[in-house]
Amino acid sequence: MNKVSEKNADDAPAPFQLRGLIAALFTPFQNDGTINLPAVKPVVDRVIAQGASGLYILGSTGEGPLLTTAERETVAETVVAATGRRVPVIVQVGHASLVEARGLVAHAQRIGADAVSATPPNYFKPDTLESLVDCVAEIAGGAPALPFYYYNLPSHTGVRFDMVEFLRLGGARVPSLRGIKFSDPMLHELQACLRFENGRHDIVFGVDEMLLGAAATGVGGAVGSTYNFAAPVYRRVIDAFARGDMDEAREWQFRAAEMVRVIIDTAGRGGLKAVMALIGADCGPSRAPTATCSPECRELLRQRLQELGFFEWIKNTP
Amino acid sequence: MNKVSEKNADDAPAPFQLRGLIAALFTPFQNDGTINLPAVKPVVDRVIAQGASGLYILGSTGEGPLLTTAERETVAETVVAATGRRVPVIVQVGHASLVEARGLVAHAQRIGADAVSATPPNYFKPDTLESLVDCVAEIAGGAPALPFYYYNLPSHTGVRFDMVEFLRLGGARVPSLRGIKFSDPMLHELQACLRFENGRHDIVFGVDEMLLGAAATGVGGAVGSTYNFAAPVYRRVIDAFARGDMDEAREWQFRAAEMVRVIIDTAGRGGLKAVMALIGADCGPSRAPTATCSPECRELLRQRLQELGFFEWIKNTP
Amino acid sequence: MNKVSEKNADDAPAPFQLRGLIAALFTPFQNDGTINLPAVKPVVDRVIAQGASGLYILGSTGEGPLLTTAERETVAETVVAATGRRVPVIVQVGHASLVEARGLVAHAQRIGADAVSATPPNYFKPDTLESLVDCVAEIAGGAPALPFYYYNLPSHTGVRFDMVEFLRLGGARVPSLRGIKFSDPMLHELQACLRFENGRHDIVFGVDEMLLGAAATGVGGAVGSTYNFAAPVYRRVIDAFARGDMDEAREWQFRAAEMVRVIIDTAGRGGLKAVMALIGADCGPSRAPTATCSPECRELLRQRLQELGFFEWIKNTP
Amino acid sequence: MNKVSEKNADDAPAPFQLRGLIAALFTPFQNDGTINLPAVKPVVDRVIAQGASGLYILGSTGEGPLLTTAERETVAETVVAATGRRVPVIVQVGHASLVEARGLVAHAQRIGADAVSATPPNYFKPDTLESLVDCVAEIAGGAPALPFYYYNLPSHTGVRFDMVEFLRLGGARVPSLRGIKFSDPMLHELQACLRFENGRHDIVFGVDEMLLGAAATGVGGAVGSTYNFAAPVYRRVIDAFARGDMDEAREWQFRAAEMVRVIIDTAGRGGLKAVMALIGADCGPSRAPTATCSPECRELLRQRLQELGFFEWIKNTP
Repeated sequence: MNKVSEKNADDAPAPFQLRGLIAALFTPFQNDGTINLPAVKPVVDRVIAQGASGLYILGSTGEGPLLTTAERETVAETVVAATGRRVPVIVQVGHASLVEARGLVAHAQRIGADAVSATPPNYFKPDTLESLVDCVAEIAGGAPALPFYYYNLPSHTGVRFDMVEFLRLGGARVPSLRGIKFSDPMLHELQACLRFENGRHDIVFGVDEMLLGAAATGVGGAVGSTYNFAAPVYRRVIDAFARGDMDEAREWQFRAAEMVRVIIDTAGRGGLKAVMALIGADCGPSRAPTATCSPECRELLRQRLQELGFFEWIKNTP
Repeated sequence: MNKVSEKNADDAPAPFQLRGLIAALFTPFQNDGTINLPAVKPVVDRVIAQGASGLYILGSTGEGPLLTTAERETVAETVVAATGRRVPVIVQVGHASLVEARGLVAHAQRIGADAVSATPPNYFKPDTLESLVDCVAEIAGGAPALPFYYYNLPSHTGVRFDMVEFLRLGGARVPSLRGIKFSDPMLHELQACLRFENGRHDIVFGVDEMLLGAAATGVGGAVGSTYNFAAPVYRRVIDAFARGDMDEAREWQFRAAEMVRVIIDTAGRGGLKAVMALIGADCGPSRAPTATCSPECRELLRQRLQELGFFEWIKNTP
Repeated sequence: MNKVSEKNADDAPAPFQLRGLIAALFTPFQNDGTINLPAVKPVVDRVIAQGASGLYILGSTGEGPLLTTAERETVAETVVAATGRRVPVIVQVGHASLVEARGLVAHAQRIGADAVSATPPNYFKPDTLESLVDCVAEIAGGAPALPFYYYNLPSHTGVRFDMVEFLRLGGARVPSLRGIKFSDPMLHELQACLRFENGRHDIVFGVDEMLLGAAATGVGGAVGSTYNFAAPVYRRVIDAFARGDMDEAREWQFRAAEMVRVIIDTAGRGGLKAVMALIGADCGPSRAPTATCSPECRELLRQRLQELGFFEWIKNTP
Repeated sequence: MNKVSEKNADDAPAPFQLRGLIAALFTPFQNDGTINLPAVKPVVDRVIAQGASGLYILGSTGEGPLLTTAERETVAETVVAATGRRVPVIVQVGHASLVEARGLVAHAQRIGADAVSATPPNYFKPDTLESLVDCVAEIAGGAPALPFYYYNLPSHTGVRFDMVEFLRLGGARVPSLRGIKFSDPMLHELQACLRFENGRHDIVFGVDEMLLGAAATGVGGAVGSTYNFAAPVYRRVIDAFARGDMDEAREWQFRAAEMVRVIIDTAGRGGLKAVMALIGADCGPSRAPTATCSPECRELLRQRLQELGFFEWIKNTP
């Protein structure tokens, strides 16, 4: 991915930025559904070794909203410790209760997380942009200097506002608003955010299967669940694109999309976690209402991914 | 409202039932947004004095999902203590995390609540009826003998399943499933639930403005926000209907709907709480993202309700 | 159903009104999918004999939007002729093209139809109430003196506006606006329309399974597909309600809903037409994309309806 | 845009293909709302002169569904005659009535159109993929050898199926199925369609503001409303992308999106037609329910586009 051109004043420290492939980390569970803390470090190591340049934790992939507040805090602490500053850790804190979310922001700062991120409250939802910015101000206020990324996921949350207008209002109201995790396919809105006020904000893309199109549009960082196990595939997309080899870039982007299609068709959203077990980084079951892939389903998934060539694709290139 | 005919085996204790007008209690806040615990008892007293035959707490009206878990527990304890068994108290425990919801169920039992109720998890949502029943089983399992009411609110939660099928599956799987808070306008589905297995479950209705139609359809209990302050209006609907005076019943139902229209048009959802202040039972502001009615807005609301005759309507009839 | 009280100026002719059960007439097709004109009169006779007090043609049930304009005109002419003024005929003219809809209104007047009705345009949809009223004015203008009923069917059309506000604006702009075919479960909005400006408009209800609740709320006429074949069932609902026998009214309303449930569960929307064949008034297949009930499916439907008692229920009471 | 690699059997004629920028032609109206036939040829000439490589007529931009069937036929004839085979003409025929749509297909063939295209029926909608394919077979059957493009526009029609599965089923059932007008932002689904069965189908993209991302993903043709007046802007996107100058490609894509933003913010969907007047190719008002841009609104739009640089951008490059 190309860099968004951005000039800073001579002496100002460079603002926090997410670049490359940020894994939306899975939270490992025991078979009884409790958190599997000892599994965190091996999973983190594996994901970083495979090429992730950051960890976005406790979001949709990490099942954060399905955990108790205490569990969320424990997982965040464990991941931050296991990562040991090798890559940045962003903690997702979205909650129906802004008080809980704000508390999680303060906690993230205390434990040394690099940034926080939040979906809008999802029981009562902001029905105006002003209300959304109020909510973000409330949440981010838990640690006023910690970089905050709004998690824009309208197809799931039902909260859809123009993100350029959000940056305009939010940038003026929320000092720590650093950027957006943009998990929506509207590339023109993404591009307008990237260019807003000379690229002042950090916009990372969240639709793995559309990474090539987003890279062409100018994005420099991406957060996604499949970067946990398939970063080498996407690396080839980015590298081929960077050297102008569009046929190669398309080929690997297509393979990534085929991989996702096979996973979802075979096992639903729970299949993503099953892949982790298949590559030797078992993260256990999912929490309800996400269905967990049965052993039979996992074996079927292994076969189909094998036929696709997946296990070859994800080998790290030299 | 007429009673749903229900025969029990000779010696079995009558099952728990909700009858009449159950107020979906407001949670009082201080102006700084924290819980106003001392205000709980006066509000409870006032609501019961006005004719509420039960209290449904920490639901949408009670802003339960906008509270922290600790706050939800404190409010539940305070309400149960303040009520002192004058009327039943039902605690709403819905949460994106089933673990939190289950914990709140156990807590409700410990503090002596009469029943619990829950929306489906609202971050990831059950996408099959089986998954919904799994979720309900998980939640209700926190206190396996405490009566559980599923909170069916599809227009808000986006989770819509046929409630007859839900009773069929859920009745077999979840021993404590007692009934449904049916907050949906589909009266035929309501009626089919009322008659399912000879009226085995307790179905209470949750659309205040349609109470007359629901009473005609056979419902015997209703839960709603406007029963906090306008129970006398609805009492007249029910009484007139019971004695066959349909013109009178319609007149008062229409007044109730006009009242709601004036409140919402003037002040949005936050206006409901403003009415409590207007009748001398101040519950303070709402939590974001619900907008709080400003003093000017509240005064305008007072004027409009006055013109409507509202403050006369809600006087208790002798 | 009780009458909505309505007083007219001394000498003014009573305005057109729909009372009782208006059948949303099926359009009979040949097996090759063309219109079966010779079948129209027998179907009309049968439906009137079973108790329908009016015919609403070429709506959703009549598959009007699935016909060509020429076919719609031919069917309208044939029904009007076959009816011979025994009961009023209302022609549904909704179309993506307002020019076509307006032409169908003019045609309806030429052939002697009693009223017209239209859904909003459904390709581009009005996005403000003003735009909706503009569209209605354009359509109704094809015959400025012919009573016009707006067809409010928001769950299907996606066009949802407050119908009281619609009556306010539309009543001032469109001289021929007579009322609303209210096919939505919101009984409070229905009631507010019934009482708007002292009951000036004629509001008919369109959710068959909720007729009892609507009758309690005060409606005096209803339009629906199941009034083609089950008017005697609903007649009993209305009569029992009128004499205050609520148990009886509920019993028959429940049977009506069970009947609908069996039809839809067995055969989908195409099952409604299959029932016509089962009672000896064959209306042929449905047009795509509505699935036609196969002979096997129809036989299964016959058995299930038999078990329910349906064929006894629909015998005319003496 | 790069070509999708496609190999044909030695002697088979190359299949029909759409390449480059296809204008979704506006239909010109008189001020009284009737079709302005004399304006068709000048508009066609202008659009072709500006760089359109094809004309897609009577779709959303062309307000086809808002015309009568007779008007649609007249417009189609006039455009085909005016074009005189300089570029291909594709006629959009979607209609709530499959009989009308099929008739329009037959008509398109009679008048020498190059291809047809259709949205799914939009009153009753296909609820399974099989039903959608049935509908497409019915429509396309009006001219079994004329290339047919399914118009996939799920955000507007509410009909969303996986287009790869559609190609699988539809390709086997409908001999004339040539491809898809893919008006949806899901680039991975677009890519999978492009590569399905070795690129057998012709997939053209329909989200103008995302053209760069789609080109990177491999698409070779695009259909859109802004290609009527801004083809030179998009030409620069494509040319810069082709020579690997991503900064330049992004700059022009961004300008295109800014242009769209200004038009829609200033005048809504009706503003697109206003731009035609501003560049000297007046297409008159829009039909209801689309709002027509007033003279004041048009002047404001002119000013804003001027400030943007729009009138310079659209000058043809040498």
